[in-house]
Amino acid sequence: MMRTDTSAETQPARAAEAPALIAIDWGTTALRAYLLDASGAVLDTRASSAGIMNLPKPAAEGGFDAVFEATCGAWLANGEPLPVIAAGMVGSAQGWMEAPYVSTPADPAALVAGIVRVKTHKGVTVHIVPGVLEDGTLPNVMRGEETQIFGALASDTALDHEPYGGLIGLPGTHAKWAVVSKGRIERFYTFMTGETYGALRDHTILGRTMRAPDHQDMDAFIRGVDTAKDDGHAGLLATIFSTRTLGLTGKLKPEQQADYLSGLLIGHELRGLNEVLAREQADLAGKALRLIGNDALCERYRHALARFGCHDARTVAHATERGLHRIALQAGLIQSSAERI
Amino acid sequence: MMRTDTSAETQPARAAEAPALIAIDWGTTALRAYLLDASGAVLDTRASSAGIMNLPKPAAEGGFDAVFEATCGAWLANGEPLPVIAAGMVGSAQGWMEAPYVSTPADPAALVAGIVRVKTHKGVTVHIVPGVLEDGTLPNVMRGEETQIFGALASDTALDHEPYGGLIGLPGTHAKWAVVSKGRIERFYTFMTGETYGALRDHTILGRTMRAPDHQDMDAFIRGVDTAKDDGHAGLLATIFSTRTLGLTGKLKPEQQADYLSGLLIGHELRGLNEVLAREQADLAGKALRLIGNDALCERYRHALARFGCHDARTVAHATERGLHRIALQAGLIQSSAERI
Repeated sequence: MMRTDTSAETQPARAAEAPALIAIDWGTTALRAYLLDASGAVLDTRASSAGIMNLPKPAAEGGFDAVFEATCGAWLANGEPLPVIAAGMVGSAQGWMEAPYVSTPADPAALVAGIVRVKTHKGVTVHIVPGVLEDGTLPNVMRGEETQIFGALASDTALDHEPYGGLIGLPGTHAKWAVVSKGRIERFYTFMTGETYGALRDHTILGRTMRAPDHQDMDAFIRGVDTAKDDGHAGLLATIFSTRTLGLTGKLKPEQQADYLSGLLIGHELRGLNEVLAREQADLAGKALRLIGNDALCERYRHALARFGCHDARTVAHATERGLHRIALQAGLIQSSAERI
Repeated sequence: MMRTDTSAETQPARAAEAPALIAIDWGTTALRAYLLDASGAVLDTRASSAGIMNLPKPAAEGGFDAVFEATCGAWLANGEPLPVIAAGMVGSAQGWMEAPYVSTPADPAALVAGIVRVKTHKGVTVHIVPGVLEDGTLPNVMRGEETQIFGALASDTALDHEPYGGLIGLPGTHAKWAVVSKGRIERFYTFMTGETYGALRDHTILGRTMRAPDHQDMDAFIRGVDTAKDDGHAGLLATIFSTRTLGLTGKLKPEQQADYLSGLLIGHELRGLNEVLAREQADLAGKALRLIGNDALCERYRHALARFGCHDARTVAHATERGLHRIALQAGLIQSSAERI
């Protein structure tokens, strides 16, 4: 029986399914583990702050092993051994075991071919999915996002047939924008939008005149987006200073300045994205794309994208666990429900 | 006797001149005071780290007064009272007394009209030069740089007759680029290049893979400039990530990454400047311009400017003290040597 519906009314039935896979999204600052059945339905989840840069004890002293045991050990305690798959920074040079990058264009088969295996002290094999590299004069790398992208494509094949390739955005600390086509990640871009925002707000003069807002000020945010989108300025290093000077001249309140700066940076990101899309005769205007990420941030991006003429930017939910399930299937770690019947 | 030569052989003669003016460049993090004769020759200098955000005691408890006394008191102890002029953040809302901004286009007469006076507890009047504001949707402000710009123009009238206006760059934490014409600051731009560089290096992932270099790596710097100058990228938020990914792919050594990032940011600044110049049918290529700032930083900018086709970018020395002297003359605080004779 195939089931991907995760709505509430199917929960009792789903809970009765047998556990078939442990799937882990293991990043720099956090980890999330999923217990899935063969169809990919989520039976249980665990969250931990033990990201790879945040292990309770050093890697050399079994830090990864201990976190895995603490997070997933109970799922393995009573019953047959389950296959385990993990994606994210856990496969980086600073991770549990390095899974060398797979080059673009990359499809799930290439990821499967690049899986590395590490054995826990209890003898459990953890399959680590590699990240993706787009080499060149401005190389790009991702770890974890490739899995989310294939998770999104698993439930949304229409995106694959967009003219000039489908576009998937993953907002965040290091926002990614990937062009997908025929089930492959063709190329992608990284924008250090979230991290630059934090550094400017917390470690430059711009933060000094800001007051923390009670609520999100969408007008200030959109004003920032529109300013960055406009052609008449001297670039990001110049526009960000207006966060301060608009305050000095009484045109932007202290409690609006954080949202304005956020809008500026996201606006510069989308402007830059549009510039590289233009080289492929593509444009955000009128494009159907998908977003993967937390709802509040995706909602901000939707507002910003609308200023660039893009009004079809749906958020894809459950991309992480669907991606891990899909790669595990392709790797033969589990069988699809259809095959089992 | 008119004398502006500051070369070494004239020093004994100059030291014999009578003190005529105390001139202070009082910024956010530091202060530099000059004892000048009527011709503007420097008789003595004092430096202090007591910038306006760094006063040993709060402003309300006479913090400014105490710093002034500690820095310049000795010059006033034996003899007739000297006029005192100060420029920089000392005239900001957080300064000793606010000198409201003068709007562009601004000439020295407008600055003189905007001077505010504050009396020390010993009865000395300090004349504070206002900053300059260019209002609009992206307002720009400067405090201190206007004085340096008029100091540069005092000794370099050729710049005033450049087609489309002369261009003066002041690299630093908040780099300024001003277009000057007919003895006026017509308009200007601010780039948060220096401060953004520090925030990215010290407070983002980019700093983690950097190793402090033994010496400046000009090849890495120029590589950054050229990358930013190139049209084929997705903007600053994308290019900065290459500092890391070029390292990950073995194409940029840890000790090259700081210079590369510096080149990237200065390259983005000059690219942005070129974009606004283009609207006035101007271009950095082939332009003669002037730089004001410390020698090492100006040298980096000269290398970067050359990549944009600009090979005539001389550094103007002594712009600060010359500017303060010129404004004091125009304000009638001192008489020119010619007038005195």
